Amino acid sequence: MKRTIFFIGNDSRFAFRVSLFAFRVTQITFYLICLVLLSFLNPASGQNNDSSSILHSPSSTRPTWVLVIHGGAGGPGKGGMPADLEKQYTDKLQEVLEAGKEVLSKGGTSLDAVETCIRMMEDSPLFNAGKGAVFTEEGKNELDASIMDGKTLKAGAVAGVSTIKNPITAARAVMEKSKHVMLIDGGAEKFAKEQGLEIVKPSYFYTKKRWDEYEKVHQQEMKGKAEENPKHGTVGAVALDAYGNLAAGTSTGGMTNKMKGRIGDSPIIGAGTYANNATCAISATGHGEFFIRNVVAYDISALMEYKGLSLDAAAHLVVDQKLKSQGADGGLIGVDKNGNITLPFNTKAMFRGTIRSGGKAIVNIYPD
Amino acid sequence: MKRTIFFIGNDSRFAFRVSLFAFRVTQITFYLICLVLLSFLNPASGQNNDSSSILHSPSSTRPTWVLVIHGGAGGPGKGGMPADLEKQYTDKLQEVLEAGKEVLSKGGTSLDAVETCIRMMEDSPLFNAGKGAVFTEEGKNELDASIMDGKTLKAGAVAGVSTIKNPITAARAVMEKSKHVMLIDGGAEKFAKEQGLEIVKPSYFYTKKRWDEYEKVHQQEMKGKAEENPKHGTVGAVALDAYGNLAAGTSTGGMTNKMKGRIGDSPIIGAGTYANNATCAISATGHGEFFIRNVVAYDISALMEYKGLSLDAAAHLVVDQKLKSQGADGGLIGVDKNGNITLPFNTKAMFRGTIRSGGKAIVNIYPD
Repeated sequence: MKRTIFFIGNDSRFAFRVSLFAFRVTQITFYLICLVLLSFLNPASGQNNDSSSILHSPSSTRPTWVLVIHGGAGGPGKGGMPADLEKQYTDKLQEVLEAGKEVLSKGGTSLDAVETCIRMMEDSPLFNAGKGAVFTEEGKNELDASIMDGKTLKAGAVAGVSTIKNPITAARAVMEKSKHVMLIDGGAEKFAKEQGLEIVKPSYFYTKKRWDEYEKVHQQEMKGKAEENPKHGTVGAVALDAYGNLAAGTSTGGMTNKMKGRIGDSPIIGAGTYANNATCAISATGHGEFFIRNVVAYDISALMEYKGLSLDAAAHLVVDQKLKSQGADGGLIGVDKNGNITLPFNTKAMFRGTIRSGGKAIVNIYPD
Repeated sequence: MKRTIFFIGNDSRFAFRVSLFAFRVTQITFYLICLVLLSFLNPASGQNNDSSSILHSPSSTRPTWVLVIHGGAGGPGKGGMPADLEKQYTDKLQEVLEAGKEVLSKGGTSLDAVETCIRMMEDSPLFNAGKGAVFTEEGKNELDASIMDGKTLKAGAVAGVSTIKNPITAARAVMEKSKHVMLIDGGAEKFAKEQGLEIVKPSYFYTKKRWDEYEKVHQQEMKGKAEENPKHGTVGAVALDAYGNLAAGTSTGGMTNKMKGRIGDSPIIGAGTYANNATCAISATGHGEFFIRNVVAYDISALMEYKGLSLDAAAHLVVDQKLKSQGADGGLIGVDKNGNITLPFNTKAMFRGTIRSGGKAIVNIYPD
């Protein structure tokens, strides 16, 4: 600039202005391109607003603890369920959230909260997990569950069990007291017994409602004209505790009239359950075969870690696009390391509830 | 520019040059920033050269078909195995590759090649899969296998079976002939029988070598002083066929002295096996619990799809960094949609072989 001023004559005032104008253009172009560059380096920024979460808490106001539960996706849409049954569900979900709050608000861990909530839903005949599980094609109950600790990436699962009252507690015992991640059938039952867990007769899991469902579907499938198979009712919980640790768990009876020995996504780490302090905690529910093939729970974590998506954007991409395009019905719940949550589902309903430090329990069944 | 030329006087020549110079600066800045922007939009470009593959075939010279097999990672390092046993392994791997070539060169599918190769290794007592499987803590054989079709994302798996001669064929039947992805134990065996698959007595799987291994480890663990547990021997295959379709499969007896009902990564879609025409086909072998928790096979696909890594860079990141940092030993084989392959392992040895259209079979045991 100094050299320019030194050399210019009297009538070159306008030319000088032109040169100044050119420099301004350089500056503005530079700033604009920097702006575009930054938006590409942080692709999540454009998607953080895409949230249909009940509680969307930006990291600047991270809650001390967060708990999200589900009692399965599917079932009839709004108005399709008797009002008193609907109330039983919302009351139970409310009760489960309060029990989880009791754990987390008193400094309990996310693993404790997840196990506590899932045990309560396993013990309730309302849900397709523990007591109230659906029947296999042979008219038996075969239960699956898994749990994962986001701090250590340790995990535990049981599958195809018929005598363990609370499969989620057995899954946690596999994680904490064995050298393995997954035990099935008689092996899981033997281990649960050795660990002093409550063992019940297979008949404990019987409920008339599920037996009637089974008989209907079984008859239809025998005649080769099965209508839609009720798959709803899997339960799950995800939590962030006061120590910043994430955990996820899922428990199910699978799908009505499933083949003997069929395993769905619920006990599969990465498919039905995943937790990692670096990203999120996920519990899924839906048509398990598709959830396995799409590695659903881990896919959300990978989309966050590798592609920079927000939890909510990643979860909606998987549920609303990937799964829906394959005709796979279901949903999931998730919480990330900052306490943001997500609850997407592509079915007519998903039994779900959320609570966090300083907030009230919120229970929903139908789309917001 | 017209206005500028119209107004400038005689002695303003230099000022005009300055204005021109400023425009050039604008242009150059613009081009430079565009260049930076483009490199960020295509992060894979910088990593495609990082390959330690035996066969690295850039997409410009994509082979018609590619086959990679493994017979497990682990075991003693170079010089630790009798020469005649080493020859038995290399001869068998060579024979398996030739059989796979026979399938693929005659227009067979990647699924056919994967099943053919794994069946041969299951039938050989050399490997820890099918005949020659290791024993559980109860002195029994419990076999797991899975297979996945990269074209349809369909998958099949069996786990904890004791009477199915070829678990990989049962896994394929689950994928193609049932509504499920995973069947375990008695349910898988019932289904395999119904499908007309070969059923054997549990004693068929006995080999003296594995029994001796079991007795040694079992005694050590009973005394609470177990040495390193031999986990090697899982088998697997991945292939790209002439139609551009990928497939992957894995079969195993698990780990010696495992608990009854223990399931490792081999039958878990996303952990031990994954295939997707959009990315790659993977079969893993190693300490299964870590491979489940790290969702190893799908993680490589996600690193390729979401982070733009090459197959080889993704595979080495997972095996050499993620798994190694957790003390998890093992390896894997992979082929991508362009025929590039990868064979990373963090153990002293991995039994492995590769062949592709127009090429010769290459068999290796120790690090290159």
